[in-house]
Amino acid sequence: MKAAIVMGSKSDYPVVQKAEDIFKQFGVACETRIISAHRTPKVAEEFARTAEEKGIEVIIAAAGKAAHLAGVLAATTPLPVIGLPMKSSTMDGLDSLLSVVQMPKGVPVATVAIDGAENSALLAVQMLGIKYPELRQKIKEYKIKMEQDIIALDAEFNK
Amino acid sequence: MKAAIVMGSKSDYPVVQKAEDIFKQFGVACETRIISAHRTPKVAEEFARTAEEKGIEVIIAAAGKAAHLAGVLAATTPLPVIGLPMKSSTMDGLDSLLSVVQMPKGVPVATVAIDGAENSALLAVQMLGIKYPELRQKIKEYKIKMEQDIIALDAEFNK
Amino acid sequence: MKAAIVMGSKSDYPVVQKAEDIFKQFGVACETRIISAHRTPKVAEEFARTAEEKGIEVIIAAAGKAAHLAGVLAATTPLPVIGLPMKSSTMDGLDSLLSVVQMPKGVPVATVAIDGAENSALLAVQMLGIKYPELRQKIKEYKIKMEQDIIALDAEFNK
Amino acid sequence: MKAAIVMGSKSDYPVVQKAEDIFKQFGVACETRIISAHRTPKVAEEFARTAEEKGIEVIIAAAGKAAHLAGVLAATTPLPVIGLPMKSSTMDGLDSLLSVVQMPKGVPVATVAIDGAENSALLAVQMLGIKYPELRQKIKEYKIKMEQDIIALDAEFNK
Amino acid sequence: MKAAIVMGSKSDYPVVQKAEDIFKQFGVACETRIISAHRTPKVAEEFARTAEEKGIEVIIAAAGKAAHLAGVLAATTPLPVIGLPMKSSTMDGLDSLLSVVQMPKGVPVATVAIDGAENSALLAVQMLGIKYPELRQKIKEYKIKMEQDIIALDAEFNK
Amino acid sequence: MKAAIVMGSKSDYPVVQKAEDIFKQFGVACETRIISAHRTPKVAEEFARTAEEKGIEVIIAAAGKAAHLAGVLAATTPLPVIGLPMKSSTMDGLDSLLSVVQMPKGVPVATVAIDGAENSALLAVQMLGIKYPELRQKIKEYKIKMEQDIIALDAEFNK
Amino acid sequence: MKAAIVMGSKSDYPVVQKAEDIFKQFGVACETRIISAHRTPKVAEEFARTAEEKGIEVIIAAAGKAAHLAGVLAATTPLPVIGLPMKSSTMDGLDSLLSVVQMPKGVPVATVAIDGAENSALLAVQMLGIKYPELRQKIKEYKIKMEQDIIALDAEFNK
Amino acid sequence: MKAAIVMGSKSDYPVVQKAEDIFKQFGVACETRIISAHRTPKVAEEFARTAEEKGIEVIIAAAGKAAHLAGVLAATTPLPVIGLPMKSSTMDGLDSLLSVVQMPKGVPVATVAIDGAENSALLAVQMLGIKYPELRQKIKEYKIKMEQDIIALDAEFNK
Repeated sequence: MKAAIVMGSKSDYPVVQKAEDIFKQFGVACETRIISAHRTPKVAEEFARTAEEKGIEVIIAAAGKAAHLAGVLAATTPLPVIGLPMKSSTMDGLDSLLSVVQMPKGVPVATVAIDGAENSALLAVQMLGIKYPELRQKIKEYKIKMEQDIIALDAEFNK
Repeated sequence: MKAAIVMGSKSDYPVVQKAEDIFKQFGVACETRIISAHRTPKVAEEFARTAEEKGIEVIIAAAGKAAHLAGVLAATTPLPVIGLPMKSSTMDGLDSLLSVVQMPKGVPVATVAIDGAENSALLAVQMLGIKYPELRQKIKEYKIKMEQDIIALDAEFNK
Repeated sequence: MKAAIVMGSKSDYPVVQKAEDIFKQFGVACETRIISAHRTPKVAEEFARTAEEKGIEVIIAAAGKAAHLAGVLAATTPLPVIGLPMKSSTMDGLDSLLSVVQMPKGVPVATVAIDGAENSALLAVQMLGIKYPELRQKIKEYKIKMEQDIIALDAEFNK
Repeated sequence: MKAAIVMGSKSDYPVVQKAEDIFKQFGVACETRIISAHRTPKVAEEFARTAEEKGIEVIIAAAGKAAHLAGVLAATTPLPVIGLPMKSSTMDGLDSLLSVVQMPKGVPVATVAIDGAENSALLAVQMLGIKYPELRQKIKEYKIKMEQDIIALDAEFNK
Repeated sequence: MKAAIVMGSKSDYPVVQKAEDIFKQFGVACETRIISAHRTPKVAEEFARTAEEKGIEVIIAAAGKAAHLAGVLAATTPLPVIGLPMKSSTMDGLDSLLSVVQMPKGVPVATVAIDGAENSALLAVQMLGIKYPELRQKIKEYKIKMEQDIIALDAEFNK
Repeated sequence: MKAAIVMGSKSDYPVVQKAEDIFKQFGVACETRIISAHRTPKVAEEFARTAEEKGIEVIIAAAGKAAHLAGVLAATTPLPVIGLPMKSSTMDGLDSLLSVVQMPKGVPVATVAIDGAENSALLAVQMLGIKYPELRQKIKEYKIKMEQDIIALDAEFNK
Repeated sequence: MKAAIVMGSKSDYPVVQKAEDIFKQFGVACETRIISAHRTPKVAEEFARTAEEKGIEVIIAAAGKAAHLAGVLAATTPLPVIGLPMKSSTMDGLDSLLSVVQMPKGVPVATVAIDGAENSALLAVQMLGIKYPELRQKIKEYKIKMEQDIIALDAEFNK
Repeated sequence: MKAAIVMGSKSDYPVVQKAEDIFKQFGVACETRIISAHRTPKVAEEFARTAEEKGIEVIIAAAGKAAHLAGVLAATTPLPVIGLPMKSSTMDGLDSLLSVVQMPKGVPVATVAIDGAENSALLAVQMLGIKYPELRQKIKEYKIKMEQDIIALDAEFNK
């Protein structure tokens, strides 16, 4: 099982890295690429066209401002594409969010919260969990762990 | 392969029906339920808890205003949950969109465009395509068909 | 007389603490819990289901982003639920506000200002004042004190 | 037990009437007034100052645009004030919502959804339920009825 | 000729001071008051009711969040009221702006830019200029000075 | 005493007419012009430059979208300029409002609500009331009449 | 001299047609194409890659929602690309506007108003006017005509 | 070939300078002016009226808040005007963006992203490229260089 993360700019990496961490934690192989829909359109097209044959099963696309990357990849690949809108220096991420989520009929992008890198990878793992029972199992364990952590925090807080 | 559509109100059906049509077109079995996160919380919890064992592999949750349905289901099920924000009589769908997409760390919802029912189902099909090669194949054909339709429209327009 | 404050994340506590301070000032017993609608849904459900029998008379729910906590509690409890939308790192609190206030018909949440922790507790005290005349009296005194403080400030400023 | 509804303009009545209907359904006495914070400030002040002594226990204030009515009443009365932001011809209700909910420290307004008249009254009933056990009981029955209605709708839909 | 500045909170003073500076520069007497529409409603009412007889000819009201101060004063006084929306810690001033500017028919507030303290005073001076020819004259000189300053800056920049 | 109304497009007249009606009611002479900041910049400049000498004492500028008209007139005239933002077919008037109200330091525009034509004229009358005691008196009567109308409506409603 | 208009959907044509009318009026040859960035990415890429060699000198791209068309063309062509954001059924055109205008560094799109089809063509004519003096001349005449029309309207209105 | 940059305030220069750098890099002569639409309207008018005869072929106008500069210049000059909306201390640049882009029919402004100074100059260069083949060539090289830089970054990142 294999995922890809594509980011529109290297400056997105500090956020994107949290998605890589989730993939490591779940044992999902992941390649991370710097590809810009606007500055390297041919690379983007080639990446999207060949992703499936390279064994990639789900793609995360992180971009900010007029964030076209997820949509551009989704235009070409039959794989599910997860859009991760990045907050930039203006508009508090609203521009990225709307550019990613408001896709026209026929070409969906599975959008997560602004700067929600962990969730983009968790969503990818849930999608892969459709096929891989061991990932489904790990998600259940992750949810239980998350629940227990909050319960412990609450108990500690009310001690 | 089996999907479920959950809508928060029966009044969402005229939009939601377009998602059912996509599932029919792709040969994906689909049950459609009326379940409200706020008015039938126990039904929502039970649905989310038992969805996997009933063979459901992906869930679409359609809701408007403070649209908690997708998040509430995602809290309980390990399946991927697609959030379909519905436009209501105020705020032009922005309230629904933000309520669905801005999920906190740990519990993602795969959000599509406001009222984007077709895309919610197409995204579900892409997710199922990770496991079912015949669906992946159909998506490719769908994309080719969509491309040819636009090309034909353009040719007709410029005749 | 007894109130409960539920916060979706421990990081909300610096703001939430101001609500606790108001309750102390008014002599209202208060328990503060860390419960997440999405990460600990069963705890949330149990808390909401048993709050009344534990003697709790009003609940404050503080959460950010797609802030479903108040709505999820209000779905189950017959007690009035006050929603306190928390500002997070993106969208300047608008996402929280809309997720809390735009509740569908049948399940209201009494929403206060973004990060308005003091007001969430003052509102709870006003609600309790319906039943407890001594609280009603203290609110009157609080309002007089507030008025006198501003008048003194103004006098000092214009000395 | 007694509630008051104050509306800033007679044109708000078609929406406000739904709050009256809820009060009738729950057996809560209710007087409805047309009082404008800006056009009849003295009446507003007098109403707020004397509401408690007239036996009113909770106030709903419905207003649109720069909707100051709820805040103006809350400035004077020690009773809980519920703010009902009304959608007007511009800004889709956002102006009303922000004018009602973003109250400064010390003077809360319990805000419900834009045009959410039923919920404003249900919230009032929940507040009164703190004091009146029979209302608390009726809320529980209301919630059960609401749940059963949706369950029946869902069953009918899936017949 | 005499103006008044009313601010809802002492914390508004660093911004409001710039309005005072403009009044000094134009030789307009000005009293500055701390009066809250919500915390000192009686003082606000009394101020508005007596402003004219005290010789005040124009009022500036500075407030943030659900900024009702300008509207509340305008409800009572026949004097022109200038609303100065203050940016607070959330919503970037949009809540203040809409609360000040979107006044219902019959009670206008002359709104200036968010945090636009200088402009609030300049507008007051322009209004007073209707009556006082010497102020009209000073405005003309102010405009010429402003023009010359920019021209000099531009010349310096292009030297 | 004399006012001018300038509208950016003849299509603004149905709204602008309500301002004319107020001026008639208050006995203020008023000329109404169609002048576009962008399509007739020379006319706009000439109008602003000569308004004072023609006896105009206050100017209302009504415009929509990127509504520069009020600002452009205010750049040249020493008279107070009232900006009336018009709602157009997109953005629900928010573009007009921000274009009118967010004026930079030095050149204020007295902004009223979106489509708030009556209030634009009432504000003009209040400004003129600084100089003309008879107008001040009429404003007081207008406020009393407005108050009595609402009181009568309320009495009728509660009969 | 030759321009191209590309629209993302045939349903954009009623608006786009106004751009064609401007081109006819100015004697600029124009081809209009239906090309979708997401549904016909290869056609879009080919169009952008070959536009220059086909003699096209400026491109208008009209699209709605997550409107990537202008950006996708601008990624490949060295020609100036004008983005025309189209209003769709939700979000009042804000999504289209931000998706078109907020382009990242290196790949500009010359954005005009939402649904501003005439202006997209006029801007194209102004760009072409850099090279073709006869177009520059026609723009001057267009501006004079526009000015005279408004002046005539104003004269008629004040007759 | 010659461009002009006009900025509404000297404080815009740190951002505007990036546009100058692009012009230097492309060998386009450029004069930079400080001209305010509101504080120096006569200079603005004169600049716009004489720009063409001074050999200027394209104008960039940078301004913030109610950013009328680009529109005011476009009202007078037949040259293409590029609007560069500047982020100021409130509203995150949304006020500037809407004030610049939402121009009425007849007078377009070619708007780029908030604070997008580089893109404003690149767009100017693309416009000039319509006339000057050497600039068209340099744009192609710029795009190739940009592409190669990202490809190198990606290669380095994945080494």
